[in-house]
Amino acid sequence: MTTDTKTAPPRLSFDTHPDRYRHWKLDVDGPIATLSMDVQEDAGLVPDYRLKLNSYDLGVDIELADAIQRIRFEHPEVHAVVITSLKERIFCAGANIFMLRGSSHAWKVNFCKFTNETRLAIEDASEHSGIRFLAALNGICAGGGYELALACDEIVLVDDSNSAVSLPETPLLAVLPGTGGLTRVVDKRKVRRDLADVFGTIAEGVKGKRAVEWKLVDAVYPASRFQEAVRKRAEELAASSDRPTEGPGIALGPVAPDETAESLEYSAVSVAFDRAGRVATVTVRAPDAAVEATPEAIQAAGDRFWPLRAFRELDDAILRLRVNEREIGTIVFKAIGDPARVVDADEVLLANADHWLVREVIHFIKRTLKRVDLSARSFFALIEVGNAFAGTLFELALASDRSYMFDDDDQANRMQLTGMNAGPLTMSNGLTRLQTRFYGSPGLVEAALAHQGPFDPAAALDAGLVTFTPDSIDWDDEVRLAIEGRAALSPDALTGMEANLRFVGPETMETKIFGRLTAWQNWIFQRPNAVGPKGALTSYGTNERAEFDFGRT
Amino acid sequence: MTTDTKTAPPRLSFDTHPDRYRHWKLDVDGPIATLSMDVQEDAGLVPDYRLKLNSYDLGVDIELADAIQRIRFEHPEVHAVVITSLKERIFCAGANIFMLRGSSHAWKVNFCKFTNETRLAIEDASEHSGIRFLAALNGICAGGGYELALACDEIVLVDDSNSAVSLPETPLLAVLPGTGGLTRVVDKRKVRRDLADVFGTIAEGVKGKRAVEWKLVDAVYPASRFQEAVRKRAEELAASSDRPTEGPGIALGPVAPDETAESLEYSAVSVAFDRAGRVATVTVRAPDAAVEATPEAIQAAGDRFWPLRAFRELDDAILRLRVNEREIGTIVFKAIGDPARVVDADEVLLANADHWLVREVIHFIKRTLKRVDLSARSFFALIEVGNAFAGTLFELALASDRSYMFDDDDQANRMQLTGMNAGPLTMSNGLTRLQTRFYGSPGLVEAALAHQGPFDPAAALDAGLVTFTPDSIDWDDEVRLAIEGRAALSPDALTGMEANLRFVGPETMETKIFGRLTAWQNWIFQRPNAVGPKGALTSYGTNERAEFDFGRT
Repeated sequence: MTTDTKTAPPRLSFDTHPDRYRHWKLDVDGPIATLSMDVQEDAGLVPDYRLKLNSYDLGVDIELADAIQRIRFEHPEVHAVVITSLKERIFCAGANIFMLRGSSHAWKVNFCKFTNETRLAIEDASEHSGIRFLAALNGICAGGGYELALACDEIVLVDDSNSAVSLPETPLLAVLPGTGGLTRVVDKRKVRRDLADVFGTIAEGVKGKRAVEWKLVDAVYPASRFQEAVRKRAEELAASSDRPTEGPGIALGPVAPDETAESLEYSAVSVAFDRAGRVATVTVRAPDAAVEATPEAIQAAGDRFWPLRAFRELDDAILRLRVNEREIGTIVFKAIGDPARVVDADEVLLANADHWLVREVIHFIKRTLKRVDLSARSFFALIEVGNAFAGTLFELALASDRSYMFDDDDQANRMQLTGMNAGPLTMSNGLTRLQTRFYGSPGLVEAALAHQGPFDPAAALDAGLVTFTPDSIDWDDEVRLAIEGRAALSPDALTGMEANLRFVGPETMETKIFGRLTAWQNWIFQRPNAVGPKGALTSYGTNERAEFDFGRT
Repeated sequence: MTTDTKTAPPRLSFDTHPDRYRHWKLDVDGPIATLSMDVQEDAGLVPDYRLKLNSYDLGVDIELADAIQRIRFEHPEVHAVVITSLKERIFCAGANIFMLRGSSHAWKVNFCKFTNETRLAIEDASEHSGIRFLAALNGICAGGGYELALACDEIVLVDDSNSAVSLPETPLLAVLPGTGGLTRVVDKRKVRRDLADVFGTIAEGVKGKRAVEWKLVDAVYPASRFQEAVRKRAEELAASSDRPTEGPGIALGPVAPDETAESLEYSAVSVAFDRAGRVATVTVRAPDAAVEATPEAIQAAGDRFWPLRAFRELDDAILRLRVNEREIGTIVFKAIGDPARVVDADEVLLANADHWLVREVIHFIKRTLKRVDLSARSFFALIEVGNAFAGTLFELALASDRSYMFDDDDQANRMQLTGMNAGPLTMSNGLTRLQTRFYGSPGLVEAALAHQGPFDPAAALDAGLVTFTPDSIDWDDEVRLAIEGRAALSPDALTGMEANLRFVGPETMETKIFGRLTAWQNWIFQRPNAVGPKGALTSYGTNERAEFDFGRT
């Protein structure tokens, strides 16, 4: 039974490079980088729509995400980024409406998830890497365009008779601003809720002095002074950075797995598909030699440094699983190799955490693990003999919905914690995975971290670090039945259940965006008033007027 | 265009009384009340289903909500409540599945909202009124039955071979536990997320010692000792209460408006429908004489005490609007009469807030205002000449999505704050409406509260207390266009937008339940895997097996 029959783009790769960008231009000028949007109309992911007026599809956002990443790793000398447009009097018209209309429900949801992650990566770069972002709105800024601006530290708008910021989704399309807009307007920019309500229902938006008064933008400047004001403010923002004053950075080479119908093979990550079972096994391999241990050696290793390499590959694998493998509902994590190498790598990361590059690596690992938390797939970790679930790799088990650890008297099997489990790898809720796991029992977190050396299965179970520890008699059946049982359940109910159980405790702007806002948007993306034959998204740009069922739900 | 064609119950009243309960029995025995569920199978709201095994529909929950309310007001001597069942070996099978299957999407959503509010009212009574709740699970406790137990302070389960607690929604029906279950399991009871994941996928649930070990229940007792253990624990819980040792309470008389096709008329509240415009005007009238000012006089006035009477009527009006008037998308609040009387009433409430009855009145007002915040309707407040928007009644303006205050030099028009705006009437996010309004700017809250006496329109606008202040030339058109414009928008997009903008700032278990969990449940309630022709909810109890689209979204 397939209910989504609309066009889906072909199998996607997330690998790109500034030399191949079609929609963005990245200029680095000393401490200030400028990211300019110049979307090529006829270069959408599928030919069904034209990306007019700097509107975007996922392909545009993949380039933006790549650019942010490269500024972090390749340009440590960049202290501020100006995000602007090369189109006259247009900053960005938001997500392409015809793309949304032609997309399946699942595609819309995945599109919003990735674009949300990209905007959160901007905020992460500001908060944790000292890169300040300035949205320089040189013209009309609508919908997703304004949501991109909201992800920046500051927003300046050109003051002319034309240029406004707007969230026209509700009045024009009967959907929500799906990329954090509503949350950021009130929670980040602290726009008063009644003014936000008015703003959210005015298709034409708000401009000039009123946009400043309502806190929708930080400043407006006439066109004649705009570039100068942007440059000045960017320089001021750059001055607050703690990044190195000069490079070099490291080059991020392509992440390109060998693909077969049944597998993705990277250097440190393998993905094996069991399509009949709707399961993929993702295996991460520990380094096979000691990792580089000094900042100089790490910098020389560049993207070959195992923690960066393994997690870039894992990140790519998760993204491909999300968009290319919709029917793979369960992902089994395995970690293999010598756990001592992982423990050593963790020590190197922690000992050099103040170095700009190591800092970037740690935050990259953190973001990759957050993608796992936010993936609408079930994750099971299998901790078997010969496993390398230690420290950072044990986070994969902690990120999993369940973990099974093989327990047999004749075969030693162990897992281990390190300092990487104690702080740096926070989830969206601001807690570590151990704090989340033992929410309300901080003593259990301390006890687990105070434990010296590896845990055998009984100790791991006792400490609450694994879910089940079947013995050699039960292992095969118990694991098989668990995986088969999971695959038999409704994928939608599992998505909802996991989205609720994974994020216990405090909420942040980030969990609000993914929990509250996304869930409401997903609901609305199915409503006839938006996507039915007479819905507003369906009717937009046609001669037909939308017709609503006015019953409130 | 109407997409919901399934059976909807007839126009509902929320008025009931223990003498007329069909599904619950309320026994008061000194400090301990026992609320026993004994659902009458053939007494559902519509005849399409039978309420077997203590399963419930909205009618059952209306009685439960009434009972909790009456214990608070009519039985101040009750310090603990035991919630149990009169059915042999069955506590409660949860929401009736055949009712859910036969209900429209909107009905399911409204059903979940009301039942969520009832469970939160139990927690509110525990936290704020010193009434402890003990769920005494004398048999099988599934789905919504377990969610009811989760709302209690403690849960005890009979230990036999049969009695388990379970959340079988995901494995059996492909939906979520929709009444806070997932949130309370991890956030309130602090069940570890992987154990919660297992629990949420086992249709048969967990019983005995394992239920205790996983923190799903607090204790288990063999059937032979169960009643004795429940009584003992209830007595211990009762001992922690700060309620009076004896009554009397006050009697809550019926709330019964005069109904016409175009209006609901209560003593202090009027609702006027403009069905063509899809608008209702709700007018609250200030007291026309000084309210009773001493605990003795208030107790003697009972349910005629204006703050209680007006808000009981408002609560009833909001509930009726929700379930009986789906197409009324916008609610306009007006308050009329002498604002000085409201200010006096607020002073009486604050001066006597420690008295058990006044405390109940204040918390009742708080809960009613929360129902406004959580209603999927747009609220506009119109503050006109002769208005009584002062203190507690001004909360209606603060709860509104926007407010318009008439500004004319020739006609004085004022609004006023009191101490009731400064603390007692918190929203679900734990903040007052002023704190929510000025989130991130606590100085504005202080300044508004420090202002002496009433605000004229210019002062109110300047203080940020109202959205717009049109003058006599603009008022009619501006207000009319705003209301008409609102009515023209998609009701679904408005529901989503309002659910996001109204709850800025911190999240609580309560906002998580209504924001995150409810939104996901609403999404799933539309998914073909649940409600399509081959969906699990559709197929349950038939000979057909559910068929899923296994694509993950």
